[in-house]
Amino acid sequence: MSTGFFLTMNNTGTLFLIPSVIAENTAQSVLPQEVIKMINELDEFIVENERTCRRFLKSIGYAKPLDSLILYTLNKHTDNNELPSFLNSLLEGKNIGLLSEAGCPCVADPGSEIVRIAHENNIRVKPLVGPSSILLALIGSGFNGQNFSFVGYLPVDKNARIKKIKEIENKAIREDQTQMFIETPYRNMQLLNDLLQTCNLYSHLCIASNLTGEDEFISTRTIKEWKNNIPELNKKTVIFLIYK
Amino acid sequence: MSTGFFLTMNNTGTLFLIPSVIAENTAQSVLPQEVIKMINELDEFIVENERTCRRFLKSIGYAKPLDSLILYTLNKHTDNNELPSFLNSLLEGKNIGLLSEAGCPCVADPGSEIVRIAHENNIRVKPLVGPSSILLALIGSGFNGQNFSFVGYLPVDKNARIKKIKEIENKAIREDQTQMFIETPYRNMQLLNDLLQTCNLYSHLCIASNLTGEDEFISTRTIKEWKNNIPELNKKTVIFLIYK
Repeated sequence: MSTGFFLTMNNTGTLFLIPSVIAENTAQSVLPQEVIKMINELDEFIVENERTCRRFLKSIGYAKPLDSLILYTLNKHTDNNELPSFLNSLLEGKNIGLLSEAGCPCVADPGSEIVRIAHENNIRVKPLVGPSSILLALIGSGFNGQNFSFVGYLPVDKNARIKKIKEIENKAIREDQTQMFIETPYRNMQLLNDLLQTCNLYSHLCIASNLTGEDEFISTRTIKEWKNNIPELNKKTVIFLIYK
Repeated sequence: MSTGFFLTMNNTGTLFLIPSVIAENTAQSVLPQEVIKMINELDEFIVENERTCRRFLKSIGYAKPLDSLILYTLNKHTDNNELPSFLNSLLEGKNIGLLSEAGCPCVADPGSEIVRIAHENNIRVKPLVGPSSILLALIGSGFNGQNFSFVGYLPVDKNARIKKIKEIENKAIREDQTQMFIETPYRNMQLLNDLLQTCNLYSHLCIASNLTGEDEFISTRTIKEWKNNIPELNKKTVIFLIYK
């Protein structure tokens, strides 16, 4: 792993942005050897969920005793005022890992605030390569990869959601831009239904579910074709993509 | 590697979407072991550049004779009418790899058209994990990863470019959306200059250059701060990111 050249050189540690697996038992197919080695050298982590972190470290053969780990929990309940203190060890020259619950940290999770504070303190930030369901879905869709948007969750309220779907579809058509979004797994069928009812029959919808897992599914069809062949998406992790 | 479950089962091969390295001699730090193994099993590839493909395969220890490879060239000069014929072997049940010049195929390269045709023919598409400079830059920036856009190249014409920069900055502010874009390496300094002249002093700009390489550089600063410390970006591969 390269050491890198930085504008402001100082004696702080490095904040490693660590991707986690997105499907069970897939570390060897989604994490580079050097990344696994790098994670093994750390013993201080900022994590979304402590239990998932321990399970993940165990799965990649982490050799240090799990009891001696120093873990900081960062999730939507964490008070933002606490965050700067998570970086104390970095200022003292020690390396820390930022680990997501699944996939790459800082994409659709609260990690980016930590990275922002790291930059403000001239702390070196080093993103490591790993699986991102958004990126895998994008390249697997066959849609425009030169112009794309990820807009997160659509509104829960039905009227607001339908309005947003129309807005997204219009953007895909007018701006030639792939539109990506997600839903809580138990609401997938509701969203799919709204998409099939709202979108133009000849717009394209890509459904990418359980990526990198045993039952990975990626398929691009027109709305009309999906209507004749509705997939079961309940409780699956799905990325939805709309394109003209 | 999982075999996957597909809506329409048939006897076609699988189109593997193969990420390539984005900096020299980094295969072990950016490609998972299983991905390297998977590439070694293929002998038919759709590539942006034949020479880069051979060099890449050699670098990951590809064991078959390079002379016996079947390569189809897909770049901006390729006639779209030729593309369906690239997939003939897939229809006969053989696996093919789609390989980008650098990073993930179908992101900022012409590969997505092949994936689109594959879906139309019910061919299984399997994206493999590897480095994407856009994704690494996004997570390394500290900007919003729950809402982001990649818009490719900005216009070359100065007036049009400045108009586009203003539009992008407005979007970042009004829609709380991270904006990402790129430039041809020898025009980076011109673009940086236009950004520094055009954007609000307190907007944030992240510059991510030569990612995964020896001289990787990722830094987030306000426009005002960058003005006092202008980095040399000429001929580097840079992702620019704007956020409020």
